[in-house]
Amino acid sequence: MESLKKKILTEGSAIGTEIVKVDSFLNHQIDAEFLYEIGREFKNRFADDNINKILTIEASGIAIAVCTASFFNYPPVVFAKKSIPNTMVDGFYTAEAKSFTKGLTFPLSIATKFLSADDRLLIIDDMLAYGAAALALGDLAAQAGAEIVGFGAVISKEFQGGSDRLREKGYRVESLVEIEKIEDGKIVFR
Amino acid sequence: MESLKKKILTEGSAIGTEIVKVDSFLNHQIDAEFLYEIGREFKNRFADDNINKILTIEASGIAIAVCTASFFNYPPVVFAKKSIPNTMVDGFYTAEAKSFTKGLTFPLSIATKFLSADDRLLIIDDMLAYGAAALALGDLAAQAGAEIVGFGAVISKEFQGGSDRLREKGYRVESLVEIEKIEDGKIVFR
Repeated sequence: MESLKKKILTEGSAIGTEIVKVDSFLNHQIDAEFLYEIGREFKNRFADDNINKILTIEASGIAIAVCTASFFNYPPVVFAKKSIPNTMVDGFYTAEAKSFTKGLTFPLSIATKFLSADDRLLIIDDMLAYGAAALALGDLAAQAGAEIVGFGAVISKEFQGGSDRLREKGYRVESLVEIEKIEDGKIVFR
Repeated sequence: MESLKKKILTEGSAIGTEIVKVDSFLNHQIDAEFLYEIGREFKNRFADDNINKILTIEASGIAIAVCTASFFNYPPVVFAKKSIPNTMVDGFYTAEAKSFTKGLTFPLSIATKFLSADDRLLIIDDMLAYGAAALALGDLAAQAGAEIVGFGAVISKEFQGGSDRLREKGYRVESLVEIEKIEDGKIVFR
């Protein structure tokens, strides 16, 4: 997606060799108009897949998922929570996202009533890095017996292996921009 | 907003005398199509106020803020984080949101570069209860010298006093549905 590459180069930045900072338009300040371009691109890639629900994770995935929903005739958007809220009295699925770098884990949860075996899920997030959160979302979907049509990432950092981990599990991955590496402070696209 | 009242009564529920559960369309599962109706209503209420930025808080406010932005010709949307992220190397404003019931506090932060004295802010959130988060957002805006045009809440629980606390500080508050109380398990609108 050329417009996204341009946006990353003009408004984003690299920190060290691991971090791509896109907080001016994607995950702190949000350029909502641009997110519709992103949503349209996800629609192009999954147009024939009979998506009936969009799954994402708080917080950065929400805006992208909502803008994407507008191109799929507004299926429900569900976001996993990074906690186990006390208001979910009806039961919930939980999974642990395991960091590949720090050995830390954090819990994800979704109320059971919002995922079902009838669902054909498009799983959306802003950034695919090591894949910890994406794998945990896949786990939640599996618990419900839902079908995962594919994962859609706005940006994937291919050098951190998340895309490969998901594909090894048989999942389809569509990343709108693939970053090969960060070299000498510069973002290098695949 | 009659369509919202209807939605709350048909899809929401009351728990005890304090909690209004609207997780089927507002803050866990999201009805994006309906959020555009909400966005249009915020536009109606703040149409002549020269809003140039929408401020909200993760996670539930984000979807509403993004849908609202589409009616204001896409001003930047900024969401405060409920933490102090380690990638904000450029400095940030912080505030403490103080719970009125449990005495707990949680931190909010916004990168300084995303708020300025030129901003005319519409502050959006899903639920206005005691007002802890809203007051902290007001604090962050004040640190930047930004002007707060008003607070827009999808739902206010008037019996918990957040609206009054904000108005006592001179802020304009627009709540799309005001809940007077929960009585015998029923939601009573003002």
